[in-house]
Amino acid sequence: MPSEVVELKGHIVDSLGLPRVLDAILAQGGTFEIEEIEIGKTRSEQSCARITIEAPTAEKLETLIAYIEKEGVRRLDQEDARLEPAPKDGVFPDEFYCTTNLPTNVRISGAWLPVERIEMDCGIAVEDGRAYAAPMNRARRGQMIVVGHTGVRVDAPEREDSHDVFEFMTSTASSEKPKAPIISEVVRRIIETKQQGKKVLLVAGPAIVHAGASASVERMIRQGWIDLLFAGNALPLHDIEAALYGTALGISLEDGKPTPHGHEHHLRALNTVRRIGSIAEAVRQGVLTKGIMHACVTSGVPFVLAGSIRDDGPLPEVITDVLQAQDAMRAHIPDVGLALMVATALHSVAVGNLLPTSVEVVCVDINQVTVTKLLDRGTHQAVGVVTDAALFMHELSAALPEHEEVAV
Amino acid sequence: MPSEVVELKGHIVDSLGLPRVLDAILAQGGTFEIEEIEIGKTRSEQSCARITIEAPTAEKLETLIAYIEKEGVRRLDQEDARLEPAPKDGVFPDEFYCTTNLPTNVRISGAWLPVERIEMDCGIAVEDGRAYAAPMNRARRGQMIVVGHTGVRVDAPEREDSHDVFEFMTSTASSEKPKAPIISEVVRRIIETKQQGKKVLLVAGPAIVHAGASASVERMIRQGWIDLLFAGNALPLHDIEAALYGTALGISLEDGKPTPHGHEHHLRALNTVRRIGSIAEAVRQGVLTKGIMHACVTSGVPFVLAGSIRDDGPLPEVITDVLQAQDAMRAHIPDVGLALMVATALHSVAVGNLLPTSVEVVCVDINQVTVTKLLDRGTHQAVGVVTDAALFMHELSAALPEHEEVAV
Amino acid sequence: MPSEVVELKGHIVDSLGLPRVLDAILAQGGTFEIEEIEIGKTRSEQSCARITIEAPTAEKLETLIAYIEKEGVRRLDQEDARLEPAPKDGVFPDEFYCTTNLPTNVRISGAWLPVERIEMDCGIAVEDGRAYAAPMNRARRGQMIVVGHTGVRVDAPEREDSHDVFEFMTSTASSEKPKAPIISEVVRRIIETKQQGKKVLLVAGPAIVHAGASASVERMIRQGWIDLLFAGNALPLHDIEAALYGTALGISLEDGKPTPHGHEHHLRALNTVRRIGSIAEAVRQGVLTKGIMHACVTSGVPFVLAGSIRDDGPLPEVITDVLQAQDAMRAHIPDVGLALMVATALHSVAVGNLLPTSVEVVCVDINQVTVTKLLDRGTHQAVGVVTDAALFMHELSAALPEHEEVAV
Amino acid sequence: MPSEVVELKGHIVDSLGLPRVLDAILAQGGTFEIEEIEIGKTRSEQSCARITIEAPTAEKLETLIAYIEKEGVRRLDQEDARLEPAPKDGVFPDEFYCTTNLPTNVRISGAWLPVERIEMDCGIAVEDGRAYAAPMNRARRGQMIVVGHTGVRVDAPEREDSHDVFEFMTSTASSEKPKAPIISEVVRRIIETKQQGKKVLLVAGPAIVHAGASASVERMIRQGWIDLLFAGNALPLHDIEAALYGTALGISLEDGKPTPHGHEHHLRALNTVRRIGSIAEAVRQGVLTKGIMHACVTSGVPFVLAGSIRDDGPLPEVITDVLQAQDAMRAHIPDVGLALMVATALHSVAVGNLLPTSVEVVCVDINQVTVTKLLDRGTHQAVGVVTDAALFMHELSAALPEHEEVAV
Repeated sequence: MPSEVVELKGHIVDSLGLPRVLDAILAQGGTFEIEEIEIGKTRSEQSCARITIEAPTAEKLETLIAYIEKEGVRRLDQEDARLEPAPKDGVFPDEFYCTTNLPTNVRISGAWLPVERIEMDCGIAVEDGRAYAAPMNRARRGQMIVVGHTGVRVDAPEREDSHDVFEFMTSTASSEKPKAPIISEVVRRIIETKQQGKKVLLVAGPAIVHAGASASVERMIRQGWIDLLFAGNALPLHDIEAALYGTALGISLEDGKPTPHGHEHHLRALNTVRRIGSIAEAVRQGVLTKGIMHACVTSGVPFVLAGSIRDDGPLPEVITDVLQAQDAMRAHIPDVGLALMVATALHSVAVGNLLPTSVEVVCVDINQVTVTKLLDRGTHQAVGVVTDAALFMHELSAALPEHEEVAV
Repeated sequence: MPSEVVELKGHIVDSLGLPRVLDAILAQGGTFEIEEIEIGKTRSEQSCARITIEAPTAEKLETLIAYIEKEGVRRLDQEDARLEPAPKDGVFPDEFYCTTNLPTNVRISGAWLPVERIEMDCGIAVEDGRAYAAPMNRARRGQMIVVGHTGVRVDAPEREDSHDVFEFMTSTASSEKPKAPIISEVVRRIIETKQQGKKVLLVAGPAIVHAGASASVERMIRQGWIDLLFAGNALPLHDIEAALYGTALGISLEDGKPTPHGHEHHLRALNTVRRIGSIAEAVRQGVLTKGIMHACVTSGVPFVLAGSIRDDGPLPEVITDVLQAQDAMRAHIPDVGLALMVATALHSVAVGNLLPTSVEVVCVDINQVTVTKLLDRGTHQAVGVVTDAALFMHELSAALPEHEEVAV
Repeated sequence: MPSEVVELKGHIVDSLGLPRVLDAILAQGGTFEIEEIEIGKTRSEQSCARITIEAPTAEKLETLIAYIEKEGVRRLDQEDARLEPAPKDGVFPDEFYCTTNLPTNVRISGAWLPVERIEMDCGIAVEDGRAYAAPMNRARRGQMIVVGHTGVRVDAPEREDSHDVFEFMTSTASSEKPKAPIISEVVRRIIETKQQGKKVLLVAGPAIVHAGASASVERMIRQGWIDLLFAGNALPLHDIEAALYGTALGISLEDGKPTPHGHEHHLRALNTVRRIGSIAEAVRQGVLTKGIMHACVTSGVPFVLAGSIRDDGPLPEVITDVLQAQDAMRAHIPDVGLALMVATALHSVAVGNLLPTSVEVVCVDINQVTVTKLLDRGTHQAVGVVTDAALFMHELSAALPEHEEVAV
Repeated sequence: MPSEVVELKGHIVDSLGLPRVLDAILAQGGTFEIEEIEIGKTRSEQSCARITIEAPTAEKLETLIAYIEKEGVRRLDQEDARLEPAPKDGVFPDEFYCTTNLPTNVRISGAWLPVERIEMDCGIAVEDGRAYAAPMNRARRGQMIVVGHTGVRVDAPEREDSHDVFEFMTSTASSEKPKAPIISEVVRRIIETKQQGKKVLLVAGPAIVHAGASASVERMIRQGWIDLLFAGNALPLHDIEAALYGTALGISLEDGKPTPHGHEHHLRALNTVRRIGSIAEAVRQGVLTKGIMHACVTSGVPFVLAGSIRDDGPLPEVITDVLQAQDAMRAHIPDVGLALMVATALHSVAVGNLLPTSVEVVCVDINQVTVTKLLDRGTHQAVGVVTDAALFMHELSAALPEHEEVAV
């Protein structure tokens, strides 16, 4: 197998350089042997490692090394950079080297030239014994441009002191990620959880009902994909309002318009269930005939409803003492394998506080801040999805198979 | 037809009270005659109107009047409020009156009592010659509670001076609205626009591609639902990257994972199209075989690509002078009947600036701020939808019929 | 006084056109007499009003009428539009008429020409018997441009049916407003509230402590500007953590860096106060010597701490039953004149639910969504400020005078 | 010096466990010697390191080891956990061990017991030979609770495959951070940059003017703290509008209210400067007498104004071709040491694209999404501050000393 010896210098252990390099080698199908490693004893002392890398083919080895050069690895026996002329104005040769914004050098006639005016997403032009970053639209026909990765060296950034005031700003969630693979992944995790005999917990806020995803959640419950529901007073209340009046907080779920006297519906729904005595009894008496809570009662899915100071009523099943509510939720947690937290900031953090890291958590919210807060409060295992919760549940429900189709 | 005379006092014209009342009467199926109107000549002088209201049935008249009492209308011949005992602790009689947070009075034995400690979403308890707002959970069995709307009077709020520093905060968009009726409404508007022989313009940002809605947009173009595309450099570039490499900014659209060397894809895609000379030519040569831009070229849908200082490359069709780009967009606007602005803050405001109010505008963004900005820059006819743009386009595309099914 | 008769047609009452016009006349120092008014009886029937307007000077009258023409008012005796040549390429004559995006006509030689290709923020060029909107940068030297407002007529927009699915999107809050006048206004309202013998209520979330505004709030309490505090468990807990350890959730408030074992501080603070028995007793024993809660205890400012399921501990004074917590807050509300709600979504909505509209509400949050939710839940009197809560409290505290300086 | 030998097993290199441990030891004043290290050759093979740790005192050693146990380090010679009785109901002993949500074991009578029902922010109760996490409020007087860190073992999380679809959600920015240390840090960096003879670049959006921070920025320029300004058309235009009319987009900066005809001000300001020919000439002629642009011209601070399709006018100095604008900005970059990007999404990403990583970047925006986007587009060196840009600039300006006070 082709191999090559490379060197990595700097704060390679405590700046995470070494693990990143080793990880990258393995991730791309190579193997490594650490020939020599000398680890700095103080924060300012540098470390140095000499590593032999092997890969299945010479081409893969080249790709792999080009990749880890961004982490600061240096080839010990290096060739000159290859140059090709730009085919026309504003166009680079096909295999042009794409710059990063890191300090970069190219080897020309055995000497290393710094790439001047470095800037991301450019090519490297070499002229009159100097090299510089060139934007594509400024390329001139015939200008010599670096192609391939040979003879190009990138200096890795050293991590700053990790207790810097700004360190929290290194990466984050975003709504700009492709949604289809995320939904597939959540489907996979739900099925896997069920196959392991664990429970899927839905922690949900009322926006699911307001924004029109009740039917999707209802289907997930009836199909057996949800084993447990944690919510407050608003989700079941708006769900029951929707079942009794077709509105949520007075807004028609069919045409999106306010209904006359609609703002009273949630209070009338409350009064009705309080008079009957419980949600379960309202189902038994045929007063409540559809919706998420109906599905829970008829499918035997337990729910814990926890009170908050924002509540009207509340519904009879709502536990108004918050410590008792915590205990009621705790009692269900030992069997939970996966928690879906959807459109609820308060409940997400509250339930996150109760979960061991062994429970997988997926947190869905249109607001990036909710996800941030969950992580910042210690639920580091949570994965966040910044999207419209109702549309997400709609697509998730549609992507889940009929339950009987899957051997769980 | 049953009728009743009511009175409206206060700054009823300049505080918008009168129009709101008249509007409400008509909206609920009633008719009115203004018997007398006296309009204040100064800002402090009050106005007074006496209005006869008719409605098809006595019940409808009652409902209607109950509704407009919230706007400050007073019945001239009023009866006492009706009282019923609470059926059990924590439960009101079925027809209990639901409070607002406005000053409220009830008529008991011919005298008007102020409702003390007024608070929204309560009932009104009457005891010992006093009336007060009672939360449902504090109701005691047998306590006398007001039912129905008779004998209850609500004082309408007077609008404050309209140039108050805070006035901007009176209502707004929200992600908590039901999505299905919004999508139906947009579908209806698209079809209507086509039937009127007008064009549907899509103004789109690259998040559509990143977040995985390319195929949906592509279908809308091929089906003939989009007649015109305005975008920048990033949307077509990521679309072409996706077609050539299956990635957007290096992230695989299939599995959501970063691809090795993926960050170079958009530059290589750029270089390829620049070498060939144009997007259209790349389609002709068979290099570009799918995606949004392919659909535009093969379906004859014109596009205007406007440059920005954020651009790499750019693609050959991108107009780098912003004034020329404005003119190129202007040239297409006379035929546009509906503009969909999706996931782009810069382009939404820019195109909004060019549109007459006669063009309908729907602005879709996950960020409430984008919509706010569009309205604050003068495009008041825009309707905003706060949701995930990619999931929205996915559902919109699915909700649009096959084009041939509709006579347009 | 100079006067002129104008006419307003259309759905002038129920589309709010008339009140807006009358309001504008008064706001700009004019007076009016409604000569004739005919109000449509159905939703489709138009109304018509003929109004005489007076203003102190002819110039003011002209300005005033130009202003209300945007609302659809037509001058009954109109002159031709005035034209002046553009002084150089890309520049209009000084008094050029600025277009809106509404349908517009100009009177040239006694005839009304529609302004073609209307677009906001342009001038109007007249050439070859046609008028069209011209962007400033396309003006040609010598081109005839409309100046002043005479002879220009703008068609007012008719309001669409008010129950349209999209109507919620008509205006909103924004972080782009000038902050200094907002702070002055809140200062004015605080002083006014105190002078009326009413109380100022602070409803506050823990971000005030995290983000470093404790000292500012502490000063406001000690100076007597805050009479009452509503919070949850987190605000007092992080405040006490800050007093005992100098951290909030383990982050040093001095240098912004995490402290070793810092994540345990809030639990140790909790345990300490629980062992002592109450916050007040911790102050009395000299364990708690500074901060917001210390200021409340020593200044005799009452506080209500309401529990939530997110709470650790909680602190002894926290009321864990949410209905009891609501009642405890209700007991304090009758004297409140102004409520400042800062950096708390849950408490803002909860307290908003309890307040009559007569209590002024200012809601401050970095997140526009919190403000939207408060309004959407019925607290329509709330004015929202989208800004950094900690910096806001810092500036607000600095802008409030020493209490003794003001006769309250 | 006291020392102890510990062991670290697992994917300690490629899961970043080792570097984190070594870093933590050094950060807390200890030193280490790696006695033995065996690194796994494949992704599934575990690594193992045996490390001797020294610290100045036994107490510091204990603290240090307790700290790194969270990273999975095991003490090789371990003692039993210490237990103490809870002093009263709901209260733990003072030195109680605070749980994390990671799998945890305690050593009791020489045997390791798993802590059942593990949950963050609890104590550990030991009863009947079992250990479990106990919430503080459920502690019973006399119950035996673990105190100190001896005899407690926490299993470190293994990092999942780094190409997981969800990995992006591991940490992020937040508005909940203390602001004072951030401002101090930015002040320090500005002074340092000047002392190194480098330039401070301000990249700014128009919200600075709208929200009322012009005077603060103006002061920073006049004091010499800003050497270079990059903006679009809107910032200088609203600044000039503010100087000529006291408004920004027609809103009075003094009282926050809209001004009659105010929406025309920005167009009239544009026309005025276009007639004169340039901003610099408007200063020379005494037409423009204050504001940010006046400060730039009179202090000799160069500015590059880049056009966008959103622009009215634009101002004469605005470069309307985006590629020329990029080049104009590029020409200034070699001397820049620090870039402050404030309240501008478009310009932040555009300028970020042009900067080498050696330029420090601070990005300030009220919207977390802007910061996310900047990082996601490759400017990884950027540190983000989520706050109100205008209030931030106000406090930053106030925190910067008079320029002559500092030897730069």
